[in-house]
Amino acid sequence: MLTLYYAPHTCALASHIALEEAGAGFEARRVDFATAEQTKPEYLKINPKGRVPALATDRGVLTETPAILAYVAQTHPAAKLAPFDDPFALAELQAFNAYLCATVHVAHAHRMRGYRWADDPAAHEAMKKKVPQSVSAGFDLIERGMLRGPWVMGEAYTVADPYLYTLARWMEVDGVDPHAFPRVQDHRERMAERPAVKRALKTQGLA
Amino acid sequence: MLTLYYAPHTCALASHIALEEAGAGFEARRVDFATAEQTKPEYLKINPKGRVPALATDRGVLTETPAILAYVAQTHPAAKLAPFDDPFALAELQAFNAYLCATVHVAHAHRMRGYRWADDPAAHEAMKKKVPQSVSAGFDLIERGMLRGPWVMGEAYTVADPYLYTLARWMEVDGVDPHAFPRVQDHRERMAERPAVKRALKTQGLA
Repeated sequence: MLTLYYAPHTCALASHIALEEAGAGFEARRVDFATAEQTKPEYLKINPKGRVPALATDRGVLTETPAILAYVAQTHPAAKLAPFDDPFALAELQAFNAYLCATVHVAHAHRMRGYRWADDPAAHEAMKKKVPQSVSAGFDLIERGMLRGPWVMGEAYTVADPYLYTLARWMEVDGVDPHAFPRVQDHRERMAERPAVKRALKTQGLA
Repeated sequence: MLTLYYAPHTCALASHIALEEAGAGFEARRVDFATAEQTKPEYLKINPKGRVPALATDRGVLTETPAILAYVAQTHPAAKLAPFDDPFALAELQAFNAYLCATVHVAHAHRMRGYRWADDPAAHEAMKKKVPQSVSAGFDLIERGMLRGPWVMGEAYTVADPYLYTLARWMEVDGVDPHAFPRVQDHRERMAERPAVKRALKTQGLA
């Protein structure tokens, strides 16, 4: 049995959708960011990083979205969520997810989490100001080719799709105009129609 | 035949060492950051992100260190650089690499690449000032448990080892005292003795 620790409006949604797509048996457990539950000793025992997502398994806890996504795909081969039998295709998928994780999500994080990288409140304001531009630059590369269509990797739906969908949902709060990225926007709309996405959103109280 | 595009003093060293450890046939091609070669049209045709590493293969170009490392491991199974037959162990390895990529490397990048996330020079200074603290926080979690010893994942040497080694080499320029992290420091010293590491450093003009 798996337990996914999540908070709404975080990247944990990607792992949540992937678990739904895989048909995995799992419990979704909400971590209350409003009371900073993720920084309390009880949660730090689960994930010393004090972040979500975390996926508790019979063998231990996994963290980091790209790792959890690949794990869900590899342990549910019937769902065909990642091409583990094709090293090059798998590496392309992993490169896409690494880009979301270390570039797009990091750009987004400068809007609310500037304290991670500077102490000066004026610096936080300067970071916040650049978020629309830095997040747009991330989506620009995706729009111009990384997103192959209809799904991220082409004809095959993979774990890259819930991850892109999750980050694309933040465009508006990041001051990015979704209409500037019609292919990403189209992807987002098609994702929203999937039953697995609807189930995850409903569980998280987002739909 | 593989071609690794690298620049010295970048995270491309991790992929370079992994290729050496794997016994891969490859050419290492230096990208000249001094003349901003990585931003020129010719290089952008190889990697539109304008970054290193990039690994050109017969099927196309791969980017992002975690993806390249996993690709090198999966395509050179005899070198046993990643546990592809054990999804949980593989996910732990990938989580470690994602942490280096999206947390430790990102913290480090705020020393010289603050312009990615803010335009105000005063904000760049504020970011630079916090780098010793944010990079130390990253290594602290590694020191206190993520690094199992003797190698990152325990008894087995994996592609996480060259990646940790590569980022740990930046401690001094980031204002982090390596002696505060004796287990990471010990790992760094043992890595430096490996023939594959010596070959990669020599090729890059770093030894």
